[in-house]
Amino acid sequence: MERLLITGAAGGLGSMLRERMRGRARVVRLADIAPIPDPQPGEEIVQCDLADAAAVDAMVEGCDAILHMGGISTEQPWEPILQANIIGLFNLYEAARAHGQPRILFASSNHAIGFHPVTERLDADSPIRPDSLYGVSKCFGEALARMYFDKFGQETLILRIGSCFPEPKDYRMLSTWLSADDMVALIERMFEVPVLGCPIVYGASDNEAGWWDNSKTAWLGWRPRDSSEKWRARIIERDGPPRPDDPVHRYQGGMFCFEPVRRVKE
Amino acid sequence: MERLLITGAAGGLGSMLRERMRGRARVVRLADIAPIPDPQPGEEIVQCDLADAAAVDAMVEGCDAILHMGGISTEQPWEPILQANIIGLFNLYEAARAHGQPRILFASSNHAIGFHPVTERLDADSPIRPDSLYGVSKCFGEALARMYFDKFGQETLILRIGSCFPEPKDYRMLSTWLSADDMVALIERMFEVPVLGCPIVYGASDNEAGWWDNSKTAWLGWRPRDSSEKWRARIIERDGPPRPDDPVHRYQGGMFCFEPVRRVKE
Amino acid sequence: MERLLITGAAGGLGSMLRERMRGRARVVRLADIAPIPDPQPGEEIVQCDLADAAAVDAMVEGCDAILHMGGISTEQPWEPILQANIIGLFNLYEAARAHGQPRILFASSNHAIGFHPVTERLDADSPIRPDSLYGVSKCFGEALARMYFDKFGQETLILRIGSCFPEPKDYRMLSTWLSADDMVALIERMFEVPVLGCPIVYGASDNEAGWWDNSKTAWLGWRPRDSSEKWRARIIERDGPPRPDDPVHRYQGGMFCFEPVRRVKE
Amino acid sequence: MERLLITGAAGGLGSMLRERMRGRARVVRLADIAPIPDPQPGEEIVQCDLADAAAVDAMVEGCDAILHMGGISTEQPWEPILQANIIGLFNLYEAARAHGQPRILFASSNHAIGFHPVTERLDADSPIRPDSLYGVSKCFGEALARMYFDKFGQETLILRIGSCFPEPKDYRMLSTWLSADDMVALIERMFEVPVLGCPIVYGASDNEAGWWDNSKTAWLGWRPRDSSEKWRARIIERDGPPRPDDPVHRYQGGMFCFEPVRRVKE
Amino acid sequence: MERLLITGAAGGLGSMLRERMRGRARVVRLADIAPIPDPQPGEEIVQCDLADAAAVDAMVEGCDAILHMGGISTEQPWEPILQANIIGLFNLYEAARAHGQPRILFASSNHAIGFHPVTERLDADSPIRPDSLYGVSKCFGEALARMYFDKFGQETLILRIGSCFPEPKDYRMLSTWLSADDMVALIERMFEVPVLGCPIVYGASDNEAGWWDNSKTAWLGWRPRDSSEKWRARIIERDGPPRPDDPVHRYQGGMFCFEPVRRVKE
Amino acid sequence: MERLLITGAAGGLGSMLRERMRGRARVVRLADIAPIPDPQPGEEIVQCDLADAAAVDAMVEGCDAILHMGGISTEQPWEPILQANIIGLFNLYEAARAHGQPRILFASSNHAIGFHPVTERLDADSPIRPDSLYGVSKCFGEALARMYFDKFGQETLILRIGSCFPEPKDYRMLSTWLSADDMVALIERMFEVPVLGCPIVYGASDNEAGWWDNSKTAWLGWRPRDSSEKWRARIIERDGPPRPDDPVHRYQGGMFCFEPVRRVKE
Repeated sequence: MERLLITGAAGGLGSMLRERMRGRARVVRLADIAPIPDPQPGEEIVQCDLADAAAVDAMVEGCDAILHMGGISTEQPWEPILQANIIGLFNLYEAARAHGQPRILFASSNHAIGFHPVTERLDADSPIRPDSLYGVSKCFGEALARMYFDKFGQETLILRIGSCFPEPKDYRMLSTWLSADDMVALIERMFEVPVLGCPIVYGASDNEAGWWDNSKTAWLGWRPRDSSEKWRARIIERDGPPRPDDPVHRYQGGMFCFEPVRRVKE
Repeated sequence: MERLLITGAAGGLGSMLRERMRGRARVVRLADIAPIPDPQPGEEIVQCDLADAAAVDAMVEGCDAILHMGGISTEQPWEPILQANIIGLFNLYEAARAHGQPRILFASSNHAIGFHPVTERLDADSPIRPDSLYGVSKCFGEALARMYFDKFGQETLILRIGSCFPEPKDYRMLSTWLSADDMVALIERMFEVPVLGCPIVYGASDNEAGWWDNSKTAWLGWRPRDSSEKWRARIIERDGPPRPDDPVHRYQGGMFCFEPVRRVKE
Repeated sequence: MERLLITGAAGGLGSMLRERMRGRARVVRLADIAPIPDPQPGEEIVQCDLADAAAVDAMVEGCDAILHMGGISTEQPWEPILQANIIGLFNLYEAARAHGQPRILFASSNHAIGFHPVTERLDADSPIRPDSLYGVSKCFGEALARMYFDKFGQETLILRIGSCFPEPKDYRMLSTWLSADDMVALIERMFEVPVLGCPIVYGASDNEAGWWDNSKTAWLGWRPRDSSEKWRARIIERDGPPRPDDPVHRYQGGMFCFEPVRRVKE
Repeated sequence: MERLLITGAAGGLGSMLRERMRGRARVVRLADIAPIPDPQPGEEIVQCDLADAAAVDAMVEGCDAILHMGGISTEQPWEPILQANIIGLFNLYEAARAHGQPRILFASSNHAIGFHPVTERLDADSPIRPDSLYGVSKCFGEALARMYFDKFGQETLILRIGSCFPEPKDYRMLSTWLSADDMVALIERMFEVPVLGCPIVYGASDNEAGWWDNSKTAWLGWRPRDSSEKWRARIIERDGPPRPDDPVHRYQGGMFCFEPVRRVKE
Repeated sequence: MERLLITGAAGGLGSMLRERMRGRARVVRLADIAPIPDPQPGEEIVQCDLADAAAVDAMVEGCDAILHMGGISTEQPWEPILQANIIGLFNLYEAARAHGQPRILFASSNHAIGFHPVTERLDADSPIRPDSLYGVSKCFGEALARMYFDKFGQETLILRIGSCFPEPKDYRMLSTWLSADDMVALIERMFEVPVLGCPIVYGASDNEAGWWDNSKTAWLGWRPRDSSEKWRARIIERDGPPRPDDPVHRYQGGMFCFEPVRRVKE
Repeated sequence: MERLLITGAAGGLGSMLRERMRGRARVVRLADIAPIPDPQPGEEIVQCDLADAAAVDAMVEGCDAILHMGGISTEQPWEPILQANIIGLFNLYEAARAHGQPRILFASSNHAIGFHPVTERLDADSPIRPDSLYGVSKCFGEALARMYFDKFGQETLILRIGSCFPEPKDYRMLSTWLSADDMVALIERMFEVPVLGCPIVYGASDNEAGWWDNSKTAWLGWRPRDSSEKWRARIIERDGPPRPDDPVHRYQGGMFCFEPVRRVKE
C-alpha cells in the first residue's frame, strides 16, 4: 500500500489502528475532526469534518485504502449523527468514487442488529434490527456501500463491530469483544484477497458465548484467535453475576435499546 | 378513522389516494410541499416542507392514520433526497411519536431491492440491493421505521411499491404494476387488523410475471385482484418485443440501476 | 370402505362428520363417551371411554378407517386431558396396531402451535408452541402418531384443526375457520391416496387472512374451496372492529394462551 | 421468429408441438431420426441422427429458436441413451454455439428427480435423484446446458416434463400431467422474455395433487391453466382405487425406478 | 445457589451429578424413588415418587435450581413411563410454578429424534422423530416445558442427552457420548447466563463423528472439550468393525428403534 | 480389506494413494491405462482402458473396495472425456454391480461447482455449476452414482476434490488444497462407517480461506488436520499479491472457467 487513510484517527478505535497499522503503508494518513496528537514519521495528519464535502474529497485523494472509523460511534442526538454518519458517509463514498475507488473498511456496528434477543444466533443474512439512531445510521451506511458496489464496483468490507477495546469491560462484552489483534488480522485479509465484493462481517473475536456466525464469509480466511473467556471469572467476581432483570441482557444491543431518541443535545 | 393524513397529496400516488380515500375518515388532511388544488368538503389542506420539523409536527398532530406518500419518488441528486426522504422521514416519525403513534403506511420502493436480477424471486427477507440514492433513502426509511417499532411500538406497513399507475406503461411494469384498487384494499386491511407490527410488503398486483412473493405476510389478508396481463399484448405491439440487450431488463429496478449519482442538480 | 369409525361422534365435529360421512362406508361406527342420539341405518353405536383400553380395543376392531375426533377439545384441567387425550390416544394406537392398522385422521389442533404471534406465517416444519395443557396433549399425540408410523408403518394424517364450525364466530376465526365441505374433501383425499405417510396438515379453509401454509403437503391434492371472507363485514359490524389491546389478537391460539393451568376442576 | 427447429418431431411430443407451433415462425424446421410424415407449407423436413455431429450442425444452422424434444424419452439400454441423449446433446449445444446461440427448450424430465418419494414437494433447488439411465442422461443434459450458459451465455429453459399427453392415462399422471396448451403457453413465454437465463422449470399443469413448485420461476409469467382433476373419477372408476402396495406409487418417477439397467438391448 | 435439587439422584446420571455438583450450592437436595445411599454433609435426601403430586411439591419447595434427571430413562412399558415421565413431569412443573420457578435442566433424550438416519446432521429445529414410548414421553416433556415458558416464563434447558457414561461403551456412542465434565460445564453456563429462555441443546461432547449441531445455541457459551475419539480404536478392536447389517447403525436412536411397544411389563 | 482397487494408479493422485494405502489391504490392485512402474509385493498391476467394458469388469472382479481416481482429470476435448469419464464410469458401476457392490470413492471435482464465485460459501446442497466439459462429466458421474445407490444400494462417497498435491502451488490453492494425510484419513472413515450412503463431500484440508462447508456430513467423522496457511506468505512473496483483474480469482473453478470447449484435440 502506498497511502492508507484512517479516519476517526483521534478516537479509540482509530488510535489503536494508528498504532497497529504503522509501517503497513508507505504513508498513513490520519484524519479526524479532533486534533490528532503527536505525528510520527510516515504519518500525514488531516483535520476534517466529514460533513464538509470538499474537505472529505481532499482527505481521500491519493489514498489507496481506507479504514473508515470516523463519525459518531455512540448513541447521540439526530443532528450530529446526520452530519457525521449520513452526510459524512455520502461524502466519503463520493470522494472514493472520484479518486480511484480504494477499498474501504466501513465500521458498521452491532447496533444495526441490536434489537435481536441475546438468545439468538445471527449471520450476515439476518434482518436488520437497529436499536438507536446510531444503529439506523449504520443501516444507511450499509445500504449506501452496497449501492456503490452494485453500481460502481466500489468494494467495501462492512464490519459490524462488537466491542473493540483492550479487554472486555463487562459481562455483555464477553459476547461482543473484538481484540485489536483479530481486527488487524481481518484488515490484512481484506486487503490481500483479490476479490472482496461487499461482504457483511461481524467484528467479534472467537468468544465462547458468541452471538454471530461469520461462516458465510469464511472464504475471506479470517479466523479470530482471541477469546474473551479469560476475563469471565474476573468480571463476574467484580460485578457480581449478571442479573436476569437487568435490561442490558435482553437484546444484543445492550443499553442502546433503551436510549431515548433526541433531535438535539438538551 | 377520525383524521387521515395523506402526505405527498399533490403527487401522482397522493392524488389517486385522495380520490379513493374520500369519505373513509371524518377528515382527510392533505399535505404537500406543492399547492394542492381544489379542496373538497371533508378535506384539510396543509402545505408542508418535510424538512421543516415544526411544520411536520403540526401536520401530524391530530391524525390517527398516516399514508406517507410524500418526499422524492424518483432518482434525484443527494441534496433533495437528503432533505425530503431522510431528514423529512425522521421528522415524520418524531411527529408521530409526539402525537399518539398513528399507524403509518410508509411508501418504500422496489428500488430498495432494485439490483436483484429479473430472474430472481424475492420475499420480505431478501437482502436489500438499493439501485440509486433514492433506493438508499428507502432503506434508511425502512430501518428507521423498524427502530421506532422495536423501541416505541410504532406500527408501520413498509410498502415496497412497484409501479402504481392507472395502467402499466411498459414491459417492465407488467411485472411491477400495482392497481389503485389493490392498493386501496391493502390500506383497508392495514387499518383493520388489530395487530400490524412492522411488516415489509411488496406493492404489486397479481401480475402473472411477478417478482415478489408476499406469502410471509399472508396473515394480513391482502389478496390483490388485478393483473397487468390484459395490457401485455398491447404493450408488445406498441413497443415491439422487449430486447435482450436493453439494460432496463437486467435488474428489477430497471433504469434506476443506471442513473448516475449526483450531489446537486446540474 | 367397509367400516369407518368416528370417535367423539356426539361432539360438534363428530356430529358434523356423522352427517357428512353417511353412506361413504358400508357401516359407520359412531363412538363417544356420551350417548349418541338417534341411530340410523348403516350406523353402529358404541359408548366408549377412551381411557378404557379394552373398550377402545373393541371399538376399533373391525374398522378399516378411523376419524379420531374423540377426547377433550378445549382447555381443561390436567386430569381429564390426561385420561382422554394421553392415555386415550395410546389406547387408540395400540388398538389400531392390534387390528390391521387402519388409516387414522388424528384431530390435532392449532393449539399445538398457539403461541406463535398472529403476524407469523407457519408451515408443517414450524416449531411447536403449545398454548395450553390441551395443546401439549396434541403435541404428545403428534409425537405418538409419528412413532407408530416410523416403527410400525401406521399411517396418520395429523390435522391441526383451526375452527370447524358452520360459520366463523368471531374475528379470529376469519383466519382459522375450516368449513365442513373442506374438511370432508380432505378426508376423501386422505383415504384415496395410495401412500399417506404421516403428514402434518393445517385444517383451515382458503381464508384470505390465513396463518398457515400447506404447500408442503400439496401432493395430497387437497385444495380448500371455502373462505371466511364473506362473514368479515358482518362480524366487524356486529362486534365492532377488533381492538389492538384485546389479548385474543396477540397469538394464534387466541384466548387459550391466557387460560390458567389447573390440575383438577375447581 | 424466422426459423424454429423442433427436434424429435416424429415423436409424440414433437408431433403435438408441430401442430401447435404451426404459423408461429416463418419456417418450422422439423427434425427426427425417423421419417416425418406429410410435410406442410412452411415446414422444412430434416432427417437427422443426433449422434452425427455434422448432421446436427446442419440441422441447427439458420434456426433462431430450438425446441429440443429429440433423443430417447423412455428407459432404454445404455447404448442408445449414450448416442442420442449424451453424445447427441453435446452435438446440439456445439451446433447452437456455432450458429448464434438460439434459445433452447431442453426437454429434461421428472425422471431426473424420480427417486423422491411421492409425499415430498420439490422445487428447482431440490437435489437430483435420477431413477434410470434415462434420468441420468437428463442430469447430464442439465449440467451441460448450465455450463454453456455460464461459459457462453447460451440460454436454455430446462423443462422437467411430467407427462405430456392429450389426457392423463393413469392415477400417477393426475400428479404429473402437462397439457399441450400449458406447454405451448410456456414456450411463448420463454421466447418473449428478454432475459431467460437457464432456469429449471417443472412441466406440469395446475394439477391439484401436484408434486412440483415452480414459484422460484414465477418471474417467467407462466401460469398453467389446465388441471388433471376432471379425469380423476374416471381413472379411479376404470382402474380401481390406487393400491398402496403398487410400487408405481412409491416414488415420483413411478415404474422407472424399478426398470433394470442394461447395456444393450437383449 | 442456595439449594440445588437433583432428581433421579440414585441413578447413573444422578449419581455422577451428585459427585460433581457437590459444593456448588449451599445445600444439594437429592431425590429419587429408590433409596439414596450414604448422605454427605450439605446433602438433603428426599425419597419421592414423581407420580405423587404432593411429594413432588414438597421435593421442589425451597429449591432455586433443578437438575431433573428423574423418571424412566430406558424404553419401558407404557405404564411406568406414563407415571414417571408424563404425570411425573407435570407434577414437577406445577411444583416449580408454585415455588418461584427455579431454572430447570430437563433431561430430554436423543430418543426424541431417534428415527433420523445416522447419515443426517440435525439441529434444534429438526423435526422430532421419537423412537420409542420413552422418546414420545420426552417429546411430551419438551412440549410441556415450552408451554410453561411461553405462558409463565419458566426457564428450562431442554437437553437431548446422547450417552452420558464415564466412557463410550460401543461404536454408536462414539457419536453420542457426553462426558461428565462437558455436562457439568453446560450446567454451569445454564445457571450463569442472565437470560436462558427455553433452548433445545444436544448433549454430546465434541465427538468427531457427531450427529448434532448446537450452533444455534452458541450464545450459551458451552463448548464441549472432550471427545470420544480416543476410544475408537479400542472399541473396534474389542467388538470388531461395525457391521452394515447391524440394525443399531441404521438410526440415531440405535436399538430403541426396534424395541417393541408394550403396555405393561410381561 | 481383502483387495483394494486403485484406478488411475499411474497418475498423480493414484501414485500418492498407492504409497499411502500400501498395507491397508491384503492386496492392492493398481490399474491405469498407462504403464504402472515398479510393482511391489502385495500389489497387482492391471492395465485397463476404462472405455473397455470387459476390461473394466475384469479389473473390478474380486475387489471389495474401490478408489476410483482413473479417467481424465483436467479439461480436455469431448472425445477423451466421453470415453474415460462417461463411458468409463458407466463401465465401472456396471462392473461393481456385477461383483458384489464394493464401496466406491468417486473422485469428483470442484469443477462440478466451479462457476460459483469465490465470495460464496458452498455446501453439499449448493446447485451444480460445472465449469468445463470435465466438470460436466463429473456431474454425470455424481448422478450415475446416486442412481446406483437409490436403485441398487451401491454406496459411493462422492468426493469433490479441490487440489490434492504435496503442497499448494498458487494463491487459489490456498483455498482448495487437500493434503494427502487428510485424504487418507477420509478414506479410512469411509470404509469404517457401517452405513455410508451416497454423500457428497468436498475434498479440502482445513484451509483458513476455505470455500466449502462439510458440516452436513460431519457424521462421517472426518476432520481434516492440515492447512494451507503455512504456505501463504511464501506464495505471495514468490508470485506477488494476487491481482484483482486476474480471471483465475473470479470463480471457484479458476482457469477452467475460461478453457475453450473442443470436440477433439487440435
